[in-house]
Amino acid sequence: MALIPMMEPSKTKAIAILTDFGLEDGYVGIMKGVITKINPHIPIIDLTHHIPPQQILAATFCLMNAYRYFPEETVFLAVVDPGVGSQRRSVAIEYSRGYLVGPDNGLFSGILAQDPAVKAVSLTNTDYWRVPHVSSTFHGRDIFAPIAAYLASGIFLEALGEVIPINSLVNLPLPSPHITETKIEGTIQYIDHFGNLITNIEFSQIRNKNWSITVNDIMIQSGLTYSDVAPGEMITLIGSQGWVEIAINGGNAQEKLQLKWGDKVTVIVQ
Amino acid sequence: MALIPMMEPSKTKAIAILTDFGLEDGYVGIMKGVITKINPHIPIIDLTHHIPPQQILAATFCLMNAYRYFPEETVFLAVVDPGVGSQRRSVAIEYSRGYLVGPDNGLFSGILAQDPAVKAVSLTNTDYWRVPHVSSTFHGRDIFAPIAAYLASGIFLEALGEVIPINSLVNLPLPSPHITETKIEGTIQYIDHFGNLITNIEFSQIRNKNWSITVNDIMIQSGLTYSDVAPGEMITLIGSQGWVEIAINGGNAQEKLQLKWGDKVTVIVQ
Amino acid sequence: MALIPMMEPSKTKAIAILTDFGLEDGYVGIMKGVITKINPHIPIIDLTHHIPPQQILAATFCLMNAYRYFPEETVFLAVVDPGVGSQRRSVAIEYSRGYLVGPDNGLFSGILAQDPAVKAVSLTNTDYWRVPHVSSTFHGRDIFAPIAAYLASGIFLEALGEVIPINSLVNLPLPSPHITETKIEGTIQYIDHFGNLITNIEFSQIRNKNWSITVNDIMIQSGLTYSDVAPGEMITLIGSQGWVEIAINGGNAQEKLQLKWGDKVTVIVQ
Repeated sequence: MALIPMMEPSKTKAIAILTDFGLEDGYVGIMKGVITKINPHIPIIDLTHHIPPQQILAATFCLMNAYRYFPEETVFLAVVDPGVGSQRRSVAIEYSRGYLVGPDNGLFSGILAQDPAVKAVSLTNTDYWRVPHVSSTFHGRDIFAPIAAYLASGIFLEALGEVIPINSLVNLPLPSPHITETKIEGTIQYIDHFGNLITNIEFSQIRNKNWSITVNDIMIQSGLTYSDVAPGEMITLIGSQGWVEIAINGGNAQEKLQLKWGDKVTVIVQ
Repeated sequence: MALIPMMEPSKTKAIAILTDFGLEDGYVGIMKGVITKINPHIPIIDLTHHIPPQQILAATFCLMNAYRYFPEETVFLAVVDPGVGSQRRSVAIEYSRGYLVGPDNGLFSGILAQDPAVKAVSLTNTDYWRVPHVSSTFHGRDIFAPIAAYLASGIFLEALGEVIPINSLVNLPLPSPHITETKIEGTIQYIDHFGNLITNIEFSQIRNKNWSITVNDIMIQSGLTYSDVAPGEMITLIGSQGWVEIAINGGNAQEKLQLKWGDKVTVIVQ
Repeated sequence: MALIPMMEPSKTKAIAILTDFGLEDGYVGIMKGVITKINPHIPIIDLTHHIPPQQILAATFCLMNAYRYFPEETVFLAVVDPGVGSQRRSVAIEYSRGYLVGPDNGLFSGILAQDPAVKAVSLTNTDYWRVPHVSSTFHGRDIFAPIAAYLASGIFLEALGEVIPINSLVNLPLPSPHITETKIEGTIQYIDHFGNLITNIEFSQIRNKNWSITVNDIMIQSGLTYSDVAPGEMITLIGSQGWVEIAINGGNAQEKLQLKWGDKVTVIVQ
């Protein structure tokens, strides 16, 4: 059993959790049980547990859009892990704003593209695992949750395993749009609960320009907010996380347009 | 950046959150990140995030039925906000039992009909927003979550913006049933996870009477609890929040009767 | 109103909650409000709220697989309660690792088969209910949540009602597999979010043997982890909680095999 340095509860870091486990089965509750058993003072925040099963890129996008809004030093515990039990590494990463814990499969690429890694370790020190002989199918419970709890409690990264080169971490870049003088060809990158279609085209690429979007031969005019068009009408705008999105005022653009992840869109700039 | 008065963690108020954001996208997690960043000692309780998209009246009903069970001074942070980015006001309200934060679109009408507002402000002081220039589509993150966190941390309501008349708040009354000597005509007001059909007819309207309910020409006898009828049988009773509801012992009344929100029911009293 | 002994917040026990309430309606949020009102320092962990409505056996299985991972003395508050309002007893149980609170309908049988009960009471002392006259349909709010909060705050079990014999508690044993020299006939006991089919056949029954599983005339070879077979291929393995399960590497075994709870499987051992 690992020794935790004495800490004041008020110094404990928060843990934010993202998984593809859903909430039906108790898997997420069990991870929180493991964390609470190690340190009951850790604030635990659910980012989401509804990443589509094994869709690493969706998790990468969600983490990238969320991490800035959390407290400094937050430990992000992310488990979307189709390779669990295989030879893929388990890692903990210190980056400029905090810590990242999960499988080494690219989950953190979006965060690290914006706030670079400072140090990374492979989680080889079994003293900080829940038990030395772990399940081959639930490292979230047996490795990642306890590691996150120890980091949030003040254990140093280096204690958790052997240091690995930062450039050896698996990188999974977000697909880039194709940009010319008059148009930007991008894709649907994410579809949210409201049916808003979020593209991989960034605010900075169209700043101060007149623009519209074309998808399936339909041209949609840009605006600033949903209510710039009448209820039920389509609009394209810059969403809250800086991406071009397609929405319907008071409605569901996904149901209307029947687009899916990866479908192509074209922004026309003037 | 706003200054927070020094507070003992034990004096911090709780925040209860209700939205129509669902749990798929990280939007709720981001709001909790924003709150935790301002004050990590605030207890955060999810009321629900599964209000049907943009259905203000469902949120009003849910808040009205829930607020009494929370600690005194709880800050209710409610974001069902089809008018986000438009001219609708953002408000914080002090009422006889605590605080309410959200868009001024009637969300709090049900609470305020029972426990009246004491003071209200329009959230015009950008010092207490997350950033001075906010997104036009996610005020939950940029305005409402930080305001709730500051209120829970002891900031006075008046600091948050200009005081507005209480009677200027948007009011969205629950539809009233039509009551005569022998019958009460009401509507289905809410359908819950179990398929229980909850009407807008109150306990007090049928107290100490014999009564039954008629819907789609089917007459259903009243009882005290589900098991007053055999498994699979329909019953009408007073639900846990004081409303007449229709249920099936061990089953789903909604699947059987195929009613929807707003459908008419008639209570016959003798 | 019950008196709570003075306690240091750091001595407060955690509460883990399991229900079949879903998350749409605010019922779970209301229970947390009730707990927080009694003691705002109690860490509350959701185990799951998505037990299929009224399926006690699913809840029993989920609790049995989860409880070991929670802190010592955790209070498990479980409400899957088709008999609410009937004559079924409400109970609190002290067992070797902590406390259990809920209806006396077998919910805790799986836990108690492994870690035996020490003492049990029927919750007859209305001083510890939320109000003396409770709803007939929501004992989670009016009895179980407050009782769990008082136990987590240090109230002794005996204060909550009359002691009852441990062997009078309703017992709901997990169905046992039929074991011979060469095969084990079991059933699908649980189907998780990923479509993994979890049987009632335990690790200990096949330890150190070569084995495979047969279901619907399909024979599936055993392995150690999902990636022991190619993506899209079926495998049977020992899952993270010690049960034989059927999975597809990167896929959904339930969608492929169309099995349901209670369906028969046969493990062939050599």
